[in-house]
Amino acid sequence: MSAGADVVVVGAGIIGLSAAWRLAQRGASVTVVDPAPGSGASTVAAGMLAPVTEARIGEEPLLRLNHASLTRWPAFAAELEEASGRRIGFRTDGTLMVGLDADDRAALDDLASRHRAMGLEVEPLRGREARRLEPGLAPGVRAGLLAADERSVDPAAVVAALEVAAAGAGVALVRAPVARLVLSPAGDRATGVALGPPAPYGEGTGPGAPAAGDGRELAAGTVLLAAGARSGFVPGLPDHVRPPVRPVRGEVVTLRQPTDDPLVTRTLRGIVHGSTIYLVPRDDGRVVVGATQEERGWDTRPTAGGTYELLRDALSLVPGLDDAELVGVRAGLRPGSPDHLPIIGWTALDGLAVATGHFRNGILLTPVTAEAVAALLSGEPGPDEVRPCDPRRFAGGPVATGTVGS
Amino acid sequence: MSAGADVVVVGAGIIGLSAAWRLAQRGASVTVVDPAPGSGASTVAAGMLAPVTEARIGEEPLLRLNHASLTRWPAFAAELEEASGRRIGFRTDGTLMVGLDADDRAALDDLASRHRAMGLEVEPLRGREARRLEPGLAPGVRAGLLAADERSVDPAAVVAALEVAAAGAGVALVRAPVARLVLSPAGDRATGVALGPPAPYGEGTGPGAPAAGDGRELAAGTVLLAAGARSGFVPGLPDHVRPPVRPVRGEVVTLRQPTDDPLVTRTLRGIVHGSTIYLVPRDDGRVVVGATQEERGWDTRPTAGGTYELLRDALSLVPGLDDAELVGVRAGLRPGSPDHLPIIGWTALDGLAVATGHFRNGILLTPVTAEAVAALLSGEPGPDEVRPCDPRRFAGGPVATGTVGS
Repeated sequence: MSAGADVVVVGAGIIGLSAAWRLAQRGASVTVVDPAPGSGASTVAAGMLAPVTEARIGEEPLLRLNHASLTRWPAFAAELEEASGRRIGFRTDGTLMVGLDADDRAALDDLASRHRAMGLEVEPLRGREARRLEPGLAPGVRAGLLAADERSVDPAAVVAALEVAAAGAGVALVRAPVARLVLSPAGDRATGVALGPPAPYGEGTGPGAPAAGDGRELAAGTVLLAAGARSGFVPGLPDHVRPPVRPVRGEVVTLRQPTDDPLVTRTLRGIVHGSTIYLVPRDDGRVVVGATQEERGWDTRPTAGGTYELLRDALSLVPGLDDAELVGVRAGLRPGSPDHLPIIGWTALDGLAVATGHFRNGILLTPVTAEAVAALLSGEPGPDEVRPCDPRRFAGGPVATGTVGS
Repeated sequence: MSAGADVVVVGAGIIGLSAAWRLAQRGASVTVVDPAPGSGASTVAAGMLAPVTEARIGEEPLLRLNHASLTRWPAFAAELEEASGRRIGFRTDGTLMVGLDADDRAALDDLASRHRAMGLEVEPLRGREARRLEPGLAPGVRAGLLAADERSVDPAAVVAALEVAAAGAGVALVRAPVARLVLSPAGDRATGVALGPPAPYGEGTGPGAPAAGDGRELAAGTVLLAAGARSGFVPGLPDHVRPPVRPVRGEVVTLRQPTDDPLVTRTLRGIVHGSTIYLVPRDDGRVVVGATQEERGWDTRPTAGGTYELLRDALSLVPGLDDAELVGVRAGLRPGSPDHLPIIGWTALDGLAVATGHFRNGILLTPVTAEAVAALLSGEPGPDEVRPCDPRRFAGGPVATGTVGS
């Protein structure tokens, strides 16, 4: 084994990098391992910071968690831009929600009551008012709701900034796949990871795909699994601590509108004949249209049908985007969890922690997750709202102990 | 000036390269100039060899020309594969035409009568027969027409093979933009081209865009303009011999279907609620879906609206393509001519010939165009069917003389 780090983080997406940054800020020595940093779901995400519209009735713990993270975003964004010297496209324009037909408008009313229950301001708008805010809206849009508190960010820019900020705080990045988790001889403690052959684990075929690694090992006091949908599929992971995540595919289409006369000036969420669609504008003219939701394994190739549906609904909402450049289509794999809550904290295996299962809320939940991981791995309790995310709710194993550097 | 070639060809698309190949086979020294060979409309085209479905009533000269070229394709394909050692995806499965609604089927009947008038065999099919040929067709398709004589080819593979075959025959390829046409001191004869600065002529802004070239000059006995939609916009071209071509944008979507169980096994042409759509399968699983038709200048960026319409109509025809991978979207600029006939042969300026204006039929018309250019530039009459394509029908100038090597 190499000399070893306090923490080895598996996965250089937005969750892994932000946790690494926060841990390093507390003085831990941290190494992040990923064959292709930022190549997963993080940079496919549209970047809405939408605490309510992504949670369902009955998911109050998720609503509280989302809200706790939204309140942290302004300071997190400012600190990250300062530390990295990079812009991350943080926008505070709010979200305009609209519905096309009568059923769609009823669904909107439901959304509005959830906003109010959270104490977030939502403002009902007439068609004319909505169109004054967003002149590109289709004539069929007769009512809207403005959620002025919602925000958005450019996730690819966040990941790029996190790489810089983490490196600046002393985090080492190893561009290699993880072949397996390394355990103590007795099998009762995670002690590091073995780096693998060139093919990344899980690529193309899912669980169990990679051959056993023949590369070097990285020793660590703590291993943090933050590999998104693949977090449960690292070879060598004992079954009783395997986070129960599954890949939930999402496809997004990126368009480009003129920056001198944009058609979409804030996040638009539409309910279009029962389908939901969102359009998230970026400062450089891009508009991210998302997202499909399918469970179909590890395939990240965009499809004809997914692209068609996204374009159909986007053009129903903003017909003038007809002429917008189609920049590209991408798909990513959200890490879904059984109860829709993320999985954050110590597992039942000594030395092993996880931060995954963020499903549709990974970008929003980044600040609170990073803060929680840094606290929990330092032996502190972490924010109250993260408690329901304890990984041991699935395994039911004994409470593990361990703190950074201990 | 450099030592000089018998012919300098401006444009390394399918027309320029095939003409260069045929000229070199006759013993001419040929140089082809293009900043980015094969980057124009040639390699965006779907590659249907469809002599009738692309011609309209009243365009008998074009029908005859199309037919003359189709009959040359099998030998041309065999010779090109032999000369280049490459496959060009020549397929002889025929075309299945279908219509969705009653009006669409009436349009199909019209197409059938045109086929018969040309002496091409078309076979009316019942819905069940059509679906037996193409099981992926939508249930709504109740009748079809099989045009067993129609063929298809992979245009990008043809261009790649032509580069090899032309080089093998001694053609030189210069990867540089043409800054201007060089005339004799008296201005009464084309004597070569001047190579330009890095930006290709016409790129982005159309006519007159490039600065005057400061590069070397290539002397030539004959200059052949074969630069597609840009052929009329080479600086220095006298107005009275400028080919009246304009860019007509076409967008295509490329999908990928499983090769072990393909949904589309031959070219499908559909009339879908008045819109026309085609799907051209390749041996490697790709399916090219085309094409939009718009006149909007030199912009080759794909659009949201074009992609949406193509996917909508393709999925109406073959619903199972829903799951097909979306490989990419591209747009190209067809060279449109005022009378829809190409512009092939000597201009009214000594030493200047053109081969452009092929509009939607460039791939189909490649064999007959190359043969005609090689003949005309050698002082021979060329195929009868090419006579209506004489460039001087627009300029009305005096007959120019000149033969290769003279």
